[in-house]
Amino acid sequence: MTDTIALSLDEVRDFARRVLVRLGLSERQTAAVIETIVAGERDECGAHGIYRLLNCAQTISAGKVAVDAAPVLHDMAPALARVDGDRGYAQYAFEIGKPALIAKARACGIAALGLNNCVHFAALWPEVEALAREGLVAFAFTPSHAWVAPAGGTSPLFGTNPLAFGWPRPGEHPFVFDFATSAVARGEIELHRRAGKTIPLGWALDPEGQPTTDPAAGLAGAMLTFGGHKGSALSAMIELIAGPLIGDMTSAESLADDEGTRSSPRGGELIIAINPAGFLGASAEDNIARAEQVFDAIVGQGARLPSQRRYDARARSIAHGVKVSRTLYEDIAAYLD
Amino acid sequence: MTDTIALSLDEVRDFARRVLVRLGLSERQTAAVIETIVAGERDECGAHGIYRLLNCAQTISAGKVAVDAAPVLHDMAPALARVDGDRGYAQYAFEIGKPALIAKARACGIAALGLNNCVHFAALWPEVEALAREGLVAFAFTPSHAWVAPAGGTSPLFGTNPLAFGWPRPGEHPFVFDFATSAVARGEIELHRRAGKTIPLGWALDPEGQPTTDPAAGLAGAMLTFGGHKGSALSAMIELIAGPLIGDMTSAESLADDEGTRSSPRGGELIIAINPAGFLGASAEDNIARAEQVFDAIVGQGARLPSQRRYDARARSIAHGVKVSRTLYEDIAAYLD
Repeated sequence: MTDTIALSLDEVRDFARRVLVRLGLSERQTAAVIETIVAGERDECGAHGIYRLLNCAQTISAGKVAVDAAPVLHDMAPALARVDGDRGYAQYAFEIGKPALIAKARACGIAALGLNNCVHFAALWPEVEALAREGLVAFAFTPSHAWVAPAGGTSPLFGTNPLAFGWPRPGEHPFVFDFATSAVARGEIELHRRAGKTIPLGWALDPEGQPTTDPAAGLAGAMLTFGGHKGSALSAMIELIAGPLIGDMTSAESLADDEGTRSSPRGGELIIAINPAGFLGASAEDNIARAEQVFDAIVGQGARLPSQRRYDARARSIAHGVKVSRTLYEDIAAYLD
Repeated sequence: MTDTIALSLDEVRDFARRVLVRLGLSERQTAAVIETIVAGERDECGAHGIYRLLNCAQTISAGKVAVDAAPVLHDMAPALARVDGDRGYAQYAFEIGKPALIAKARACGIAALGLNNCVHFAALWPEVEALAREGLVAFAFTPSHAWVAPAGGTSPLFGTNPLAFGWPRPGEHPFVFDFATSAVARGEIELHRRAGKTIPLGWALDPEGQPTTDPAAGLAGAMLTFGGHKGSALSAMIELIAGPLIGDMTSAESLADDEGTRSSPRGGELIIAINPAGFLGASAEDNIARAEQVFDAIVGQGARLPSQRRYDARARSIAHGVKVSRTLYEDIAAYLD
């Protein structure tokens, strides 16, 4: 017996669907959520594949996500929309709001969508990739739980506050990146703790505010941002624009709302889309071609485009399916008993 | 004789005005440009004060800025405007475009302004601070000259590509930051070279693509981004959204356009403004107050807000004037002879 199980992407989708429905999530919400789980597994982002079903089970059993959420779209201004996620998963709220965001970006040239009162466990790249495939330039931001200290400080205040960007490329996968403004993902520190490994200096401070290589002390203390005061400034920006700007919680408020249940963070997300045709009109083709020169120059000097690894994995997974850990699969399958 | 000269801010303004007019810059363009020079001196950002008049002299004498530029505003879409800067300074183009950006952001909730065909020597914080003082949340981006290698690469491709952000605060100076996505400003490496000092690893690669502590080798090779692949991704984003997206040059194209004259970079700038009232309506006051809690929590743990040093300097300068290097002042004053 091997320690992995081979699955087609349809089998991953079906497995995730059965688990979430058994956990009580509504059919419509499940349909939105499983696509990011399939996408994570497909692109070999293990932490965002079926592994996340464990989080979902935790969050659902803690009552921290509304299994029957019915998000409502609000038209706020010619170029602004909000979706009240009704405490459901953000993927579902995005599905409700996406057509309005696209229509507004095309009509006005730029538009923004605020997702409110949502539960977040997925990466942001699926959102910006979907918008880039519609020909739009897209940005997405979300706070999380207050785990990260500002530069020069010692106490957790910011979330891991990711930022994602997507750029449409004719005939190619979009240029997409998505990164946490923390030095590393919180799960990375947890993996080091489980493996009994030390962490590099620069990832976290201990509860006394001192630099630490002990992952447990780092988890109990405060994570650090990437890039020193610059990363800290970006993290503060995301805290503001995907929190108070859209009438939603800060990472500190979200952590308090969690009440120690270790559920997925609840809060807001800000997505901005720009229609290149709005700026460029007839010169769009020439300008998109000049953008390709930037990508060519990156690849041509042996560097990698941010999503290249994911797209390579995607091609493999679509052709040959994926392999998932047998232990993980069986742990999750136990929810189906 | 001391090695500094004390000047009031009005004297700085008058000095800068006389120099630029003598160099041939039109009165209207001069009026826009000098305000950022006064602001730089006032906020003790020495590199963006009267020191920049040396750059202006270089750029004007090389014929790389149009002294009689007449920027033209183009209305592109309900939430998009562009200003053709007519190869004048970006500050003048921003002045022409700012009222349209503010009006569009208020009408549509979010709006973007592309400044095209402009010459850039100033920081971006004056733009986002001005918009934040109008009650808007603001972002600004610009490429520069191709001096910076992408993460994993060895050849200059990106500019120092700064990013600025502004957030309005009732009764307080706006929350503002503005940083280069390069590890340091190019001028910082130049200062090390002049002082005969080594530079830290992580700032630059030599012409063979190897890490270097030699500032001259770093200037001849490639600068590095801050924050590894994350900073590199951000720099690529800025290259795209403030270049091809608005129909303007990449940093590589701008450097080629410079023809070795070492003038200020020519190219585009993208400015985005969001009206908080658009998202928040009646709940604006409550939400702005929650943003203040984030700032309180930063300051309360002994960390600093990004612009705090500048605002402290500003208060001193407004009360007592500034001191500038006598040598620098006399070097610049020579243009008045």
